[in-house]
Amino acid sequence: MDERVREHAELLVDWSARVEAGDDVVVSVAEDAHELGVAVAEALGERGVNVTTLYGSDEIGRAYLKGAETRADGDNAEVPEFDNDPAVDRAIFEAADAYLRIGGGRNTTASADVASSTRQVYAKARKEVREARMDTDWVSTVHPTRSLAQQAGMAYEEYQDFVYDAVLRDWESLAAEMSHMKEVLDAGSEVRIVTERDDAPDTDITMSIAGRTAVNSAASVAYDSHNLPSGEVFTAPYDTEGEAFFDVPMTIDATRVRNVHLTFEGGEVVDFSAGAGEGALAGVLDTDEGARRLGELGIGMNRGIDRFTDSILFDEKMGDTVHMAVGRAYDACLPDGKSGNDSAVHVDMITDVSEDSFMAVDGEVVQRNGTFRWEDGFEA
Amino acid sequence: MDERVREHAELLVDWSARVEAGDDVVVSVAEDAHELGVAVAEALGERGVNVTTLYGSDEIGRAYLKGAETRADGDNAEVPEFDNDPAVDRAIFEAADAYLRIGGGRNTTASADVASSTRQVYAKARKEVREARMDTDWVSTVHPTRSLAQQAGMAYEEYQDFVYDAVLRDWESLAAEMSHMKEVLDAGSEVRIVTERDDAPDTDITMSIAGRTAVNSAASVAYDSHNLPSGEVFTAPYDTEGEAFFDVPMTIDATRVRNVHLTFEGGEVVDFSAGAGEGALAGVLDTDEGARRLGELGIGMNRGIDRFTDSILFDEKMGDTVHMAVGRAYDACLPDGKSGNDSAVHVDMITDVSEDSFMAVDGEVVQRNGTFRWEDGFEA
Repeated sequence: MDERVREHAELLVDWSARVEAGDDVVVSVAEDAHELGVAVAEALGERGVNVTTLYGSDEIGRAYLKGAETRADGDNAEVPEFDNDPAVDRAIFEAADAYLRIGGGRNTTASADVASSTRQVYAKARKEVREARMDTDWVSTVHPTRSLAQQAGMAYEEYQDFVYDAVLRDWESLAAEMSHMKEVLDAGSEVRIVTERDDAPDTDITMSIAGRTAVNSAASVAYDSHNLPSGEVFTAPYDTEGEAFFDVPMTIDATRVRNVHLTFEGGEVVDFSAGAGEGALAGVLDTDEGARRLGELGIGMNRGIDRFTDSILFDEKMGDTVHMAVGRAYDACLPDGKSGNDSAVHVDMITDVSEDSFMAVDGEVVQRNGTFRWEDGFEA
Repeated sequence: MDERVREHAELLVDWSARVEAGDDVVVSVAEDAHELGVAVAEALGERGVNVTTLYGSDEIGRAYLKGAETRADGDNAEVPEFDNDPAVDRAIFEAADAYLRIGGGRNTTASADVASSTRQVYAKARKEVREARMDTDWVSTVHPTRSLAQQAGMAYEEYQDFVYDAVLRDWESLAAEMSHMKEVLDAGSEVRIVTERDDAPDTDITMSIAGRTAVNSAASVAYDSHNLPSGEVFTAPYDTEGEAFFDVPMTIDATRVRNVHLTFEGGEVVDFSAGAGEGALAGVLDTDEGARRLGELGIGMNRGIDRFTDSILFDEKMGDTVHMAVGRAYDACLPDGKSGNDSAVHVDMITDVSEDSFMAVDGEVVQRNGTFRWEDGFEA
């Protein structure tokens, strides 16, 4: 076994999930993530925890939804019906202390032929399970697979190097750096982001962050951070106004989506377009009321990630980018006991801010052309 | 997809598990059983049930146990300690209506280097989870894999044909035939089995079955039968006396075991030997008190199985064989609310009765040289 697989497993278990003896840990292993699953199981055995292993297979998920579509067809129903309180799934996440999701399937478009209406009713029905899962110490990571390498347009070994450069970092040191950005956001009331590039529509968007707490997302539940890799600072904005253009391509429900343009009025998306995949975008925005409001503003600060790979786990953390998500907000950004924007979806969209751009908090520029105020070469 | 995979899936869901809309079904998919897992998920989606998919990976199980051994070494403990009430696993099986186990790993000896003492303490700690699992409508089957083909000494396509010949049968018709054997055992008090072959030690063993109910194991929970394929009639004997020789090789805890000889006195194994793998056999018998008593007597009646393949799921069902298991008895053989022999293990051992043998119930021969009393050519 590649020594980096073991290092990844130990980082996931100890730094990210903070697993302790006696915990009940649920691990979900994707089709081609077996090797990391094995390394994680060994680490968890050493830590003295109970382990339950789920099979996170996209092909099995797709087959189940296709079967449900066949049933709906037989019943002359427009969309399948799903139980909104599946007893076993609920029991699992109510009993679990931690949930480690190891992605890495065989085909990133494995469920391309599931109707978006089916996905939507399923996502709605599974809302309570999702909430129970997010109440655990959950962490999402991926094992580098050939399918993800292909999605990134990279050779397999090249992609392995890319993943481990992003994952196997000095997280304490990055957390210290990110704390500057968190301080600015915690003290601020309004964020404005502007890009003015010749080759793309302008972005000029403002949002309120008053009363919200930013998360220093250092890839550990101890920082309210649930991705490995991470390396972003994010908060939960509201009252969004203006226009935003997202030039980084992404994949929504197995559909390639490019050049998304959103117009916000009174906190809601009132107009949208996409250069490709507009139908998938429309499906997301129509999921529920909260799907038209922002749930997240994130500032990517992981400079170990040096390129876009069409994987949101990595893309949104890349230095010199910001991202906004429509849909669900994270409770960690709200005062204790309060919840932010509610939705069955959370879809991130990314803008490159390395050039011809600035971000200002309460009128004061904090990042220009990718360089932060506390970095060398910053120009207010 | 091979059409036989879909037929296998539908047989498992409908005939075996009797799944109904609204059920909560847990499916465990082994490493190389993905294809059958996909077909089962689609069938379950069509039936309108909730599905939770576990990853039944032997390599992950082995890694967890090796991790626990490392922890024990660090603590200077002789054997690892395991929680005997793992919250998530218990919650899963308490909430599940049905449990479908799809075997088919990549290496039948995947956990060969786990100490048998570790297996024993782990099996003991997981006793309550196992009992909760057995309180569901559980069914165990396998997907034909290259690893199982190798264990059988067969080519891959040849092995696929073997599996589907055994599985895709007319189960109602076989159930009708097996009902004769069940009637004999239900009416009887004592079973005697004798083999007298020139090339092997004799078997001459008697056991009581008074008050016990035989199971017509027709591969369906509706018959208290939990294996697909099945095709055996079994009961829960006690007060065993005599000697038994098991000439069919088997694998216990990844160790090849051959030519097991057991001597019973007062219902318990008082002497044992094996031509190979005696250590693994000793490990089983030493697990707990119940591991030295018989939990099962089974009569193989599936003539779709035409050879031994070193897989107990198939071998014990083969026509012209009988098997006895040390360890746990099945509740279905006991009066309502009562339990039979209790143990953390259940290990089946098989004798070929096609020649120089007979089985008598209360002194009357019911099978001689493989031929049953109700079949042509039977000689009392």
